[in-house]
Amino acid sequence: MQVPAQAGLFKSLRQGLAQLGHFDWRRPGSRALSTLGRAMRLVQFRAKGSAGDPRIGLEEKDGGNIVDLNAFDPSLPRTMRAFLEGGDAALAVAKRAQASGQHVLPRAEVALTAPVTNPDKVICVGMNYADHCLEQNVKIPQEPIIFSKFASSIVGPYDDIVHPAESSEVDWEVELAFVIGKQGKHIQESDAMSHVAGFTVAHDVSARDWQKRNGKQWLLSKTFDTFCPLGPALVTKDSVSDPHNLGIRCRVNGETVQDSSTKQMIFRTEALVAWVSQFVTLYPGDIFLTGTPPGVGLFRKPPIFLKRGDEVQCEIDELGALRNKVV
Amino acid sequence: MQVPAQAGLFKSLRQGLAQLGHFDWRRPGSRALSTLGRAMRLVQFRAKGSAGDPRIGLEEKDGGNIVDLNAFDPSLPRTMRAFLEGGDAALAVAKRAQASGQHVLPRAEVALTAPVTNPDKVICVGMNYADHCLEQNVKIPQEPIIFSKFASSIVGPYDDIVHPAESSEVDWEVELAFVIGKQGKHIQESDAMSHVAGFTVAHDVSARDWQKRNGKQWLLSKTFDTFCPLGPALVTKDSVSDPHNLGIRCRVNGETVQDSSTKQMIFRTEALVAWVSQFVTLYPGDIFLTGTPPGVGLFRKPPIFLKRGDEVQCEIDELGALRNKVV
Repeated sequence: MQVPAQAGLFKSLRQGLAQLGHFDWRRPGSRALSTLGRAMRLVQFRAKGSAGDPRIGLEEKDGGNIVDLNAFDPSLPRTMRAFLEGGDAALAVAKRAQASGQHVLPRAEVALTAPVTNPDKVICVGMNYADHCLEQNVKIPQEPIIFSKFASSIVGPYDDIVHPAESSEVDWEVELAFVIGKQGKHIQESDAMSHVAGFTVAHDVSARDWQKRNGKQWLLSKTFDTFCPLGPALVTKDSVSDPHNLGIRCRVNGETVQDSSTKQMIFRTEALVAWVSQFVTLYPGDIFLTGTPPGVGLFRKPPIFLKRGDEVQCEIDELGALRNKVV
Repeated sequence: MQVPAQAGLFKSLRQGLAQLGHFDWRRPGSRALSTLGRAMRLVQFRAKGSAGDPRIGLEEKDGGNIVDLNAFDPSLPRTMRAFLEGGDAALAVAKRAQASGQHVLPRAEVALTAPVTNPDKVICVGMNYADHCLEQNVKIPQEPIIFSKFASSIVGPYDDIVHPAESSEVDWEVELAFVIGKQGKHIQESDAMSHVAGFTVAHDVSARDWQKRNGKQWLLSKTFDTFCPLGPALVTKDSVSDPHNLGIRCRVNGETVQDSSTKQMIFRTEALVAWVSQFVTLYPGDIFLTGTPPGVGLFRKPPIFLKRGDEVQCEIDELGALRNKVV
């Protein structure tokens, strides 16, 4: 018997899991695909029902129990941004905590926030999937198109998306996100991955009506409060088989509306780090949203937009799934 | 003898000062116009030559000595963002410190940083001066046009502007800035000023070549490192006679290139707070840059752009002046 190549193995696994049919809405762990070695899934969490400062931890698997890193080592910072500033030394503590089997909190007792909050930057990339350019009949860009969201738009992986009264064209966009782990400026592509801490899932919620207003500056359409669900975990880069060959899907009320692969990305992680760091210093905690595949509501005939009561699931192989209700 | 109206008095003062000829480059205080009562000028500062965390203080006048608020009350936070979160109680401590005459540091011993650093948002307004719209022959906007800079672009009032190798069209834009002092969403115009802590001067440095690239999203052109000099002080709103009737000027190498009044603003402070808070929750420390008057380099015939070695002074009556060298 031949050992299948890793990509093939994952494809088989995914197909096998897909045949199991629909999974439970908002039941974390129903599609845990992070079986690659012992994935390190960094999270921010609170004790359920508590409103205090979040803590940092490790999710044993997508939807699994949480290792409390602040309990394992009280000298660790309480925010992911500060933890990432700790670099390899902080990650080494997390690895020891993972191996220790100690300070494990039952999942039912915690609630996740976004894995990174209050970053210096949320950097977004427009029209970065070849197949998404095709669907809107625009040319493939020669340079990355960069816009942004305010950090205040970030919410947790299972939080509600608040449908603003100010828009009647709220649309979905599942996106691969990566997070900077090391400060840098004018970073070369060949060195870019050393500045990346890991990957997660983002939902770039977009008010299409406002994308056409505001002097065609996209910011406002993208940055309403709650328009950036993020998580569930920051999966460290060494835990991901190939970030540019992952299935990426969005489902609305259980129906698959986006279904592509990150191999369709035009500008990949390394190119985006190099490009953006020409302009700005990248800091630990800075988040990149790398663009969305085809299937958004705007380009359907007729267009479909999100309405209150809808349930949106954004998922990427090996990373996990966001599950957010529109209220 | 008739007592002149306040605006006339300031005009006379300015004219008188102007007749004194050029003032010293980078000599703080050479044009201190804040003579309105006892202005409260909040600053962030470091001991000169120190690289540690900044402290918060009060500038006795533009270029004057600094009251060390953290020495006066060690329980006060060390960052302006956190200080502003303290609301009226924190401001009351600052007022007591001002009255005490204690903990005054000689100006020569301190260096100012920007009065606010690491805000959640730097919110910018495009084409917000009627006379600036005229110079570029565009219609006066019906709605504010909102874009942003990353917080990482903020530098202090006397710091260098780094001319990026990536641009050959770096332009100046003096702007009135205001800072949020109280959290809010869907704020009414009538209540807007209660959410504003005060005013300061900003320089919205702009790479015109990049404003035309990047899918015409302005973000990158506006957010190079060092492209947001800010300060020198956050002047509390009760210290400003009328924020919408202040002389606003930019000088490059001593030559006046912008000279207008904030009364030319199309959307004023109250309207901007109301407009933007439809989209996002405003937090203490959020900074608004309210647009620039005419006279930018791009619309000169021929266009003029900043080059290394240039010295730019952005000044607003009652608030003070930024003095930044292009390197």
